[in-house]
Amino acid sequence: MAAGSDEARVLAHVSDRAEQTIEEIRAAIRQPSVSRTGEGVQAMAEWVSAYLAALGADTRLAPGKHAPFVAGTLAGKAGAPRLLFYELYDVQPAAGQPGWSVDPFAGELVHDTAGRRRIVGRGAFNSKGPLVGALAAIRSFAELGIESPLAFDFLIEGEEEIGSPSLPAYIAANRAALQACDGAFIPYFGSDARGATTIRLGFKGLVLLEFRIAGGAWGGPARGDIHALHGAMVASPSWELVRALSGLVDAQNRLTVDGLSVPSPSAADMDLWRTAAARFDLDAHLAGLGARQAHCRMTREAALYDTMFACTLNIDAIAAGRIQGEGGPATAIPSVARAYADLRLLPGMSTHAVVDLIRAHLDRRGFAHVELSVRSSYPASRSRLDDPIVAALVEATRAHCADTRIVPIHAGAAPMYVFSETLGVPYVFGGVGHGAGSHGPDEYILADDVGPFMRSIVSFFYRYAENAGPLRR
Amino acid sequence: MAAGSDEARVLAHVSDRAEQTIEEIRAAIRQPSVSRTGEGVQAMAEWVSAYLAALGADTRLAPGKHAPFVAGTLAGKAGAPRLLFYELYDVQPAAGQPGWSVDPFAGELVHDTAGRRRIVGRGAFNSKGPLVGALAAIRSFAELGIESPLAFDFLIEGEEEIGSPSLPAYIAANRAALQACDGAFIPYFGSDARGATTIRLGFKGLVLLEFRIAGGAWGGPARGDIHALHGAMVASPSWELVRALSGLVDAQNRLTVDGLSVPSPSAADMDLWRTAAARFDLDAHLAGLGARQAHCRMTREAALYDTMFACTLNIDAIAAGRIQGEGGPATAIPSVARAYADLRLLPGMSTHAVVDLIRAHLDRRGFAHVELSVRSSYPASRSRLDDPIVAALVEATRAHCADTRIVPIHAGAAPMYVFSETLGVPYVFGGVGHGAGSHGPDEYILADDVGPFMRSIVSFFYRYAENAGPLRR
Repeated sequence: MAAGSDEARVLAHVSDRAEQTIEEIRAAIRQPSVSRTGEGVQAMAEWVSAYLAALGADTRLAPGKHAPFVAGTLAGKAGAPRLLFYELYDVQPAAGQPGWSVDPFAGELVHDTAGRRRIVGRGAFNSKGPLVGALAAIRSFAELGIESPLAFDFLIEGEEEIGSPSLPAYIAANRAALQACDGAFIPYFGSDARGATTIRLGFKGLVLLEFRIAGGAWGGPARGDIHALHGAMVASPSWELVRALSGLVDAQNRLTVDGLSVPSPSAADMDLWRTAAARFDLDAHLAGLGARQAHCRMTREAALYDTMFACTLNIDAIAAGRIQGEGGPATAIPSVARAYADLRLLPGMSTHAVVDLIRAHLDRRGFAHVELSVRSSYPASRSRLDDPIVAALVEATRAHCADTRIVPIHAGAAPMYVFSETLGVPYVFGGVGHGAGSHGPDEYILADDVGPFMRSIVSFFYRYAENAGPLRR
Repeated sequence: MAAGSDEARVLAHVSDRAEQTIEEIRAAIRQPSVSRTGEGVQAMAEWVSAYLAALGADTRLAPGKHAPFVAGTLAGKAGAPRLLFYELYDVQPAAGQPGWSVDPFAGELVHDTAGRRRIVGRGAFNSKGPLVGALAAIRSFAELGIESPLAFDFLIEGEEEIGSPSLPAYIAANRAALQACDGAFIPYFGSDARGATTIRLGFKGLVLLEFRIAGGAWGGPARGDIHALHGAMVASPSWELVRALSGLVDAQNRLTVDGLSVPSPSAADMDLWRTAAARFDLDAHLAGLGARQAHCRMTREAALYDTMFACTLNIDAIAAGRIQGEGGPATAIPSVARAYADLRLLPGMSTHAVVDLIRAHLDRRGFAHVELSVRSSYPASRSRLDDPIVAALVEATRAHCADTRIVPIHAGAAPMYVFSETLGVPYVFGGVGHGAGSHGPDEYILADDVGPFMRSIVSFFYRYAENAGPLRR
């Protein structure tokens, strides 16, 4: 771009505002917004709404089942493409989670072993850092008196971490306005610890399952726990659960139910995988996650292949009986056993069809008494590499990060199908900057990446205006 | 026996004292004594000690790791056999256990559907009812001024429900005095709901195991929970636990580890099993437990066979992740997964050898990272049918219960090996009277069986004096 151009001015401005933005991200972390418990979600929604108002947007709160949506619009220059800006303001719980070295809701700055500053806190990476960073970038247009290259429709939800239960209804109710958007964007800190930035062309689908077994007509303790001595003749819900679960996956936790058809990757996706695998440092990646060894000592190629193309079933929690006191639990057959699991599906797979297959698989093996319920679900979604919005993010990322990589799908599920499938609006997801620890302890982003992040976002806006603008006219 | 004999007078006396004894049992229930938490164990020990003093015994509290032993001695007539009276005063926890229709520690009287009075409460059946009932029977000698046909050594512990961790040391420290006993007795409400009374000739051994898997050098989340999206490449302790456990048992929860040799029952034990099975009402038994169906729809013969002769592994509790809030747990790979299990072994099996086999079985299947620890263990024990103390209980039970049955072993473990194996003192276990719900909700004994229970105990004392007395002289 030309020195002195609007883009150059905005890029310089966000660099100057990086420290202020870091403070705003810390302030956002200090406002808990735990959708699982409801803690602070209303206050956080108001915080975000006030931020939108400050950058010149019309803003409103729209009710959700558990937390409001923050919606808003901001005009751009004449003929500007309309961008649907999606993000979340809710976070996973942190209370009681072991491993935190600081208060998860204090927004602390902590130096890492390389001397870099980290913003550590619940939501730093997922997703208050990218949310506030991207909004601060948009605020630059007003601060500089420069017309925005894009018009914005903001949709910032507070139920993402519990499976976005209100999102489909919101989309349906606001369909016309949302379909008027040319593309959708989800800001994200997409760089690894060494500075390589990855752009993912889609998200896996997510099915949150509950398995529950209680004694009843089928057998087991139907009136309450029973002394363990009767275990020879009375079935144990816990053992039934263990057996039912163990028959659903292979040794690498990939769903293996009867009749499941996992789509094979396309040749183009295989190319993206091979390219990514050739540069994938598995050991460094695992170290970043806090794992010392890959599952089954798989190769980096296999690890990346499964992450992209396998349907994994993860146990989020399992519980039966009560572990209490020094003496351990009562020697009893607990009358109820439960497991919560998340299943990640690929583009083209129907969530309902897969759940039906799991049900039939259990029934066929004598586990009709295992109650299976779907807590929430949404399908996978994809964008095309040659879509203008994808091309814009790739160009912008390459402009601010020498090592930019493209992978076909992100194993981290997000309900972006509502854009690509329901609305037919292509979306893209990314940004330059490093963070980690999503859903775990000591979640963080690098404070010194807030500036690069905002710059990559600004350039994305301009590239998208260039790529998509002509299509509109 | 002759009318007007000492035994006849004592039998009549305990009948007259049944209502008073019912009240004493209720009072004992109202004093919680939960060894897992420590709640009330000291106060209960003092209650028992005072009771012993009131019936004329020398009594003392001896320290245990978690709760004191109540010890005591009571003289009998000249040349009387010396009986080691063993019982427990601690109970399983009840707080938070679902299914209770009354306060577990209120000692309520509740009518059953047949109009019979039940004493309902934690410990009613296991074992405050039999403890207090048997002590009340012994008190009759003092109340009537009749010399006791037996001398008594009391050993009443407060750690039985957590695996009797202090008992071996107590036995070792008091070996000489305890070995001077001719036999040992454990009072028990041995009748089923229809009035058939069973005498068990032994107890299975018990091994309390903890399985624990935490992320570490082998893999898995080593620094804290990890986002579930990484499940394709990072191992899940929960899945490892599910897989490790499911490989230890067959479909009927019988331990099936490599190299395990489960002793075959003797011909005499097979005869006892066949006789018991012919009269075993499986449906009624299951209904009493609150189960509507036998495990794997097994026959009554199979159900009884496995209860007597199989080594079952039961899951007492299993836990990974945190189930909280309406939204369910975080979609994360929990860094730690745990299961507590109890394993029931047969006479002749070494607890250490079996644990070693489990360890080797896990290691051979790639589960070396599953930590296996033994929380407590003791071996099985047996008495001989032709032993004078067994013969005495059989005769006394038959005198007070038309339908008396003998089975080779009780699946409910108890550390009676300390008598039969460590001390070489034969033991017996039983009494007439019905109770149920051990370790579960609404544990009870029939109030109207307190009288018959005490009478069967009194007759046992006299029969044993007759059978064993001559051996001493």
